[in-house]
Amino acid sequence: MTMAMDAEALNRFLQSDFPQVAGSFRVDDASHDRLTARLVVGRDHLRPGGTVSGPSMFALADLAVYCMVLARIGPVALAVTTNASIDFMRKPAAGRDLVAECRLLKLGRVLAVADVLMHSDGQEGAVARCSMTYSIPPAT
Amino acid sequence: MTMAMDAEALNRFLQSDFPQVAGSFRVDDASHDRLTARLVVGRDHLRPGGTVSGPSMFALADLAVYCMVLARIGPVALAVTTNASIDFMRKPAAGRDLVAECRLLKLGRVLAVADVLMHSDGQEGAVARCSMTYSIPPAT
Amino acid sequence: MTMAMDAEALNRFLQSDFPQVAGSFRVDDASHDRLTARLVVGRDHLRPGGTVSGPSMFALADLAVYCMVLARIGPVALAVTTNASIDFMRKPAAGRDLVAECRLLKLGRVLAVADVLMHSDGQEGAVARCSMTYSIPPAT
Amino acid sequence: MTMAMDAEALNRFLQSDFPQVAGSFRVDDASHDRLTARLVVGRDHLRPGGTVSGPSMFALADLAVYCMVLARIGPVALAVTTNASIDFMRKPAAGRDLVAECRLLKLGRVLAVADVLMHSDGQEGAVARCSMTYSIPPAT
Repeated sequence: MTMAMDAEALNRFLQSDFPQVAGSFRVDDASHDRLTARLVVGRDHLRPGGTVSGPSMFALADLAVYCMVLARIGPVALAVTTNASIDFMRKPAAGRDLVAECRLLKLGRVLAVADVLMHSDGQEGAVARCSMTYSIPPAT
Repeated sequence: MTMAMDAEALNRFLQSDFPQVAGSFRVDDASHDRLTARLVVGRDHLRPGGTVSGPSMFALADLAVYCMVLARIGPVALAVTTNASIDFMRKPAAGRDLVAECRLLKLGRVLAVADVLMHSDGQEGAVARCSMTYSIPPAT
Repeated sequence: MTMAMDAEALNRFLQSDFPQVAGSFRVDDASHDRLTARLVVGRDHLRPGGTVSGPSMFALADLAVYCMVLARIGPVALAVTTNASIDFMRKPAAGRDLVAECRLLKLGRVLAVADVLMHSDGQEGAVARCSMTYSIPPAT
Repeated sequence: MTMAMDAEALNRFLQSDFPQVAGSFRVDDASHDRLTARLVVGRDHLRPGGTVSGPSMFALADLAVYCMVLARIGPVALAVTTNASIDFMRKPAAGRDLVAECRLLKLGRVLAVADVLMHSDGQEGAVARCSMTYSIPPAT
């Protein structure tokens, strides 16, 4: 049950390799098969009406799963999303961060599968759920 | 936190309204937003190689979500699946029932959303995950 | 633009390797990136009310994509579905075959992606759509 | 076979109601059940490596389906995405717009279903496919 990167290492990796998004996303916690990440909601993430936009929710889910995979296999920049399926269920609360709880369901040789529940920070009721598949490049 | 039907009532409903599948499926447990159902695996559910077929896994997930919705709104035969997304992750074990753990994520006025994790009875590691949306007919 | 198997070869393969389903499914036509398959609807495929069941629709989509992949790479029995996403849109007509039109969108080294539109034979309006990913075993 | 809004009306609506995205997205063509939209790729849409990011592809698909629905029912700002399933298949070409071809598969009383194929402008091979469900608010 070893991990390649913890939350601190993941946040450092985001800052060095994805500086354009590192200000908006943060990994709060990472364990063997669970990870919590957050979207620090800013004006760019909102849609008319003041709630978090669909693409911003997608971006948070994608980042959470990516970091979950990296937590286990290390900073492999080439892991790519191959499939995502999202259900949008409730309107996010205005003025609150969006929190993603990720579960790693499978970490295979070529594919990783995880799902994500998202809720507005401090609120009950899932805003969205997402399942994602990542393709893992062959070790060299 | 009231329920319209418990596990026993759901199993009776399956026997009376869906006799052709009631021999293969059983609700083990049902609470406010969780339900456990099982596929009693028989020869009809297998594919070459002796493992449970994809359509049988789909059928189990669909039945679990249907019963989860009925547990809350009562025996509304007209609730229908509008979307299903499944990830097949591991080969089911031969000769074991398939167990589905369902979570109700949203029960709205017109749509219900739930997800399901499936594993071979007595085995670790999810065989498949599925998210489903049901359309709920308007009350009359 | 070569094909490994045409419609006739695919139907022979289904009869020899999947005899339990070969009576219900038939490949009508196969080309480089398109395939038409049909579910010859029988009593086993119906749900209460007389329309084709969800698992039977899933089974048809799965078979169509499997045959589409085999049409290109030959009879590789080990190709397996890793993801399926289905939208159920209209009730199938009673007493009519279900026809699946498959498009191959990607045939990669490890993953194939295709989508399927299904309609009741002789009827307008798609009954369901499905996208699927198949994992292709490494050549040996 | 009437339409409520053509491509020109849709582009005007984007500029008036979604000014923050109207500079990046454009409807090229809209007919009864087909719509073509484009992401005018700018620096904000890129991920490290210079290709269009996943969230930007999601945003394009979402906008294309939204406009397809509006083309039929008129400027109903309250239509919302309830489900999206995306397959990412090829890396987009750098320095090219991303073009989305949308098909409307169902326009029901409460739900609309459409799918989208995306390719880099002037290139063969789909970059991504997406299916989406929109919930349509009741007419008042």
